[in-house]
Amino acid sequence: MNKGIFITIEGGEGAGKSTLIELLSNKMHQRGKSVMTTREPGGILIAEQIRSVILDRQHIAMDARTEALLYAAARRQHLVEKVLPALEQGQIVICDRFVDSSLAYQGHARGLGMEEVWAINQFAIQELMPDLTIYMDVSPEVGLTRIAQASEREINRLDLEKHSFHEKVREGYQLLLKQYPDRIVLVNAEKSADLVFNDVLAAIEERFAGFFATDVKL
Amino acid sequence: MNKGIFITIEGGEGAGKSTLIELLSNKMHQRGKSVMTTREPGGILIAEQIRSVILDRQHIAMDARTEALLYAAARRQHLVEKVLPALEQGQIVICDRFVDSSLAYQGHARGLGMEEVWAINQFAIQELMPDLTIYMDVSPEVGLTRIAQASEREINRLDLEKHSFHEKVREGYQLLLKQYPDRIVLVNAEKSADLVFNDVLAAIEERFAGFFATDVKL
Repeated sequence: MNKGIFITIEGGEGAGKSTLIELLSNKMHQRGKSVMTTREPGGILIAEQIRSVILDRQHIAMDARTEALLYAAARRQHLVEKVLPALEQGQIVICDRFVDSSLAYQGHARGLGMEEVWAINQFAIQELMPDLTIYMDVSPEVGLTRIAQASEREINRLDLEKHSFHEKVREGYQLLLKQYPDRIVLVNAEKSADLVFNDVLAAIEERFAGFFATDVKL
Repeated sequence: MNKGIFITIEGGEGAGKSTLIELLSNKMHQRGKSVMTTREPGGILIAEQIRSVILDRQHIAMDARTEALLYAAARRQHLVEKVLPALEQGQIVICDRFVDSSLAYQGHARGLGMEEVWAINQFAIQELMPDLTIYMDVSPEVGLTRIAQASEREINRLDLEKHSFHEKVREGYQLLLKQYPDRIVLVNAEKSADLVFNDVLAAIEERFAGFFATDVKL
């Protein structure tokens, strides 16, 4: 049995995951919690090597199913080497993307099928589902505009072509929300970072009552 | 629909797969058949790179499930890039090991569970099961002795320790024979290579009536 708490942060491009994770991690540290933030492949040698196979530019011919299996393999190794040991030590683990990303992106948006992608991910993670998943919901318009502004460039034709893909990703997450209403909490991520952060704190308090009230006095 | 014929050769260590495949390929060529022999990763760049991750000696910590997912990924890519195109051209494809190896070795002998390993392989191969699988059955005693003789050394303690593992592999194949009686043909591979070859020819003739009688006159 794990003594820690496993929280995953999900969402489309430009949802503000990185900012939220930093705010969340700082807050938990302030309250005396032991927190580890991570994302796949997370510096795990085998997972990094798998990732480099996926990203190798020679691989224009990589099949979508090959890619999905490689992501599941990297996920497995990251879980075994990094996430599980931290949870066993009683840490709070906050992971930027996890199994829901594969389901929304590859299963739904790329059309491999969510059930099929779930099958290989179930093999990879076994019983280890997150205790809580924060889904940061933004429309593709808002998300892509944020990314364009951050990189100080205008949205180009390629971004627009990708628009329908990002709509499909969002649709995938909506399906997951219906499927896992107890695990996944929807947060309106079109609000400012501070307001989003407050909503997430409230969601964590609701899920783990008294979470931020304990441990140390500030 | 594939116009070709997909034949896989399975068996434990020292069963004589390579010898059989060579004899089989020669015979088919003689009879004017278009044959491609292959084995994973089969020179496919992505699959070779995945294989090198699996075999990297730094990876003493590779999890068994990570490994199974990587094998499935390499299988997928080899299938898509090499096996399927050959079948679509109407070739006979003879593949040294395929999905049954993963089921027998990783699913049964390594204890991951045959159904679970089947799930990720089903994702990898979709509907493409072999038209015929030859299972070359040898006891671990005979198989390991052959390997020791081929390498001109005595069976060592390590070989003997592995004995129970090879028994489990054989047990896995027996389970597959029961599960897929129409697809898998058992051949007693403790006989001489010539006799084994004759049995395999008979099995192919029985499965694909008139197979060796057609195409060209010798």
